Amino acid sequence: MSDEQFFRYWIDKHAALAKDLPGLRKYVINRAITTDNQTPDYDGFAELWFDSHELAKAAFASSIGRLVEDDARNFMAEEVSLVVAEHVIL
Amino acid sequence: MSDEQFFRYWIDKHAALAKDLPGLRKYVINRAITTDNQTPDYDGFAELWFDSHELAKAAFASSIGRLVEDDARNFMAEEVSLVVAEHVIL
Repeated sequence: MSDEQFFRYWIDKHAALAKDLPGLRKYVINRAITTDNQTPDYDGFAELWFDSHELAKAAFASSIGRLVEDDARNFMAEEVSLVVAEHVIL
Repeated sequence: MSDEQFFRYWIDKHAALAKDLPGLRKYVINRAITTDNQTPDYDGFAELWFDSHELAKAAFASSIGRLVEDDARNFMAEEVSLVVAEHVIL
């Protein structure tokens, strides 16, 4: 899979499924850009906002959540997940 | 340095310097939360928005940028940087 095919799958197929996760408030996919001929450490990262961690867990345990997790295996070789609290500085 | 000291330094000292980077549009610090007794892969991540990658590079090459990079060594053991383009799905 080329970088472009990977990214098209992520945006066109995977995000089209994941945007219907119950309780999802906001969803952004960040695509890494190769700069100064340095290969990025990751191809990018997705951010999904929920009102609470409990609601996020419920979303991924739902039938849509299981489809989303199954679909991730269609195009992602490796994944790191972080649950975070956001602190807006500016 | 405890987790709490690390985070206080990040928010109170480091972010207070970095928020003055020239051209910085938006700045969010995301603190990883330990869930289900799993230690997160990272302590968190910061997001800094600029109008272009050129402006971001100029910001880090400025005198404030050099202070910010020096200060990062005061509290961060390891750092991964990604330059990304944002795709808003929802």
